[in-house]
Amino acid sequence: MENIAELAKSVMNADRRALSQAITLIESSRDDHRIQAMELMDHLRSSDRKAIRVGLSGTPGVGKSTFIESFGTYLTGMGLRVAVLAVDPSSIRSGGSILGDKTRMERLAREPNAYIRPSPSQTHLGGVARRSREAVAICEAAGFDTILVETVGVGQSEIEAASMVDLFVLLLLPNAGDELQGIKKGILEMADLVLINKADGHLKKDAEKSLRDFQGAKNYTIEAQNFGSPDFLCCSALNREGLVEVYERIFEKRELLHKNGHWIENRQNQQKQWLRMLVDEELQQRFHHQPGIQEKIEILEEEIISQNKLPSICAENLLDDWFTNNKG
Amino acid sequence: MENIAELAKSVMNADRRALSQAITLIESSRDDHRIQAMELMDHLRSSDRKAIRVGLSGTPGVGKSTFIESFGTYLTGMGLRVAVLAVDPSSIRSGGSILGDKTRMERLAREPNAYIRPSPSQTHLGGVARRSREAVAICEAAGFDTILVETVGVGQSEIEAASMVDLFVLLLLPNAGDELQGIKKGILEMADLVLINKADGHLKKDAEKSLRDFQGAKNYTIEAQNFGSPDFLCCSALNREGLVEVYERIFEKRELLHKNGHWIENRQNQQKQWLRMLVDEELQQRFHHQPGIQEKIEILEEEIISQNKLPSICAENLLDDWFTNNKG
Repeated sequence: MENIAELAKSVMNADRRALSQAITLIESSRDDHRIQAMELMDHLRSSDRKAIRVGLSGTPGVGKSTFIESFGTYLTGMGLRVAVLAVDPSSIRSGGSILGDKTRMERLAREPNAYIRPSPSQTHLGGVARRSREAVAICEAAGFDTILVETVGVGQSEIEAASMVDLFVLLLLPNAGDELQGIKKGILEMADLVLINKADGHLKKDAEKSLRDFQGAKNYTIEAQNFGSPDFLCCSALNREGLVEVYERIFEKRELLHKNGHWIENRQNQQKQWLRMLVDEELQQRFHHQPGIQEKIEILEEEIISQNKLPSICAENLLDDWFTNNKG
Repeated sequence: MENIAELAKSVMNADRRALSQAITLIESSRDDHRIQAMELMDHLRSSDRKAIRVGLSGTPGVGKSTFIESFGTYLTGMGLRVAVLAVDPSSIRSGGSILGDKTRMERLAREPNAYIRPSPSQTHLGGVARRSREAVAICEAAGFDTILVETVGVGQSEIEAASMVDLFVLLLLPNAGDELQGIKKGILEMADLVLINKADGHLKKDAEKSLRDFQGAKNYTIEAQNFGSPDFLCCSALNREGLVEVYERIFEKRELLHKNGHWIENRQNQQKQWLRMLVDEELQQRFHHQPGIQEKIEILEEEIISQNKLPSICAENLLDDWFTNNKG
């Protein structure tokens, strides 16, 4: 890896090669790379650029890729610079259907003002949230106006994504019912904007009915994290319909968040959460690298099997010993 | 809490009140309860009862509750004792639709040979997997023949559940397509048995077609964890059709696992994983209770916000200090 200060400078000059190199660096779990990555992030910290970070979620099949392709090219068409990243906290990865794949968004991938980061090919548990957050910060320092953070799966990944974005957009199918879509009420509550996608062809009427149902219900059932209820809109990513309204709504919400102070408050809280998460990750890593720990764990594993010992008691004893011998 | 040895004895005598009391105890995060819980688990360890532990997964809407109701009452009808537990690793909980709710399985809940444990009303991150595993072990010691471990959500919860069951059953909708069902290839690969549910009414033909498609594809695309490919069956939980075949297939698989040694090997590996998970949980808890740690984290949070410090560098420094001052 070349000089890190130089790399940081190239990233801030929006050099695409440097950008990819920087993200590859922060994705590495090698110790020397981690040190360089921290140096890089420290350099980029001086950038006072502020992108709008938008989380995007929805059940597979709802049309997330098509939406990103259409909305992303709409934004680049307005001269804005767009980055697309993916968050996938699970350790299970399907072969071809996973996010960040440029072939899913061919038109957007060809735009000079767009950057699509394929998701890391291998998932190391524990480091995913760290890498996604750092990738967001890198794209922000590189001057992207909008950073779309796509989630994979339903559940945990939304929580991860919400901890690194300013606004959260949920895509729904027309009329498919909350249950079939695997949408929990909690996730609906995270959304600032709910888009009923596929409002085209024979589904258009269904989409409009869903919209009315949601709008009728929202005042007494749903309350968004940031301020009041989420907004609901129909769109057709396929036909590129409704994108202007989506754009306007997102940027209106951004203005409001800036005005009422939630924007900065939210980012500060995210930084605090990030600290706590990193402390826990580091703690585990360092503990397992302490001399003798792996050997002791292997001995306990043997005892659990051969002597039918209870894992919880073994864990307790191991930590009792370690804390006693390493205190004071 | 009464005498723990007595409680353990009552659990092993299949006293339902004791069973509920024991699970409530292990669900508690109070320190004194954790100590009692370990004592309880140590007593129950002497039981050499072996239930068959079956994980159950599938997108919301696939009919999991109906399946558990039908299959559970089928098993109790044969004189077997059935326990139903839920695993939900996410911290987001929907109001009413979540598992373990007895009203979802009214008939089964009334069976004297069935026990349905409602999922804990509040989720403390970090302790969920521990509590689910301990609840499984308690039900096993109480002499249940079959323990159904239902997963909530799609993704992480399957991985949790798989770490505590002997066999994994995946429910699919007829013809809905993998993508719409949010089923990742990785989850299909975890399944020992795939059931195409709702094979009734106008969906029956679709279900049969899906079955043929899967059976045609399975030899070259899918390999199950335990042994060879998963089996595929159609069923209608609603009409109680196909349950005999499901039962036979599950118990055939159990026999095979016992014969080829995978049963014991799998449980031993699960115990080892459990140890490592508990070590990490305990480590974090103890670290955060060390004198001065919370105060230091709060100071760092302030510095991150007021001086724009980098969270990763703050985390690194905190742990450098702590490990330096607590070694030797």
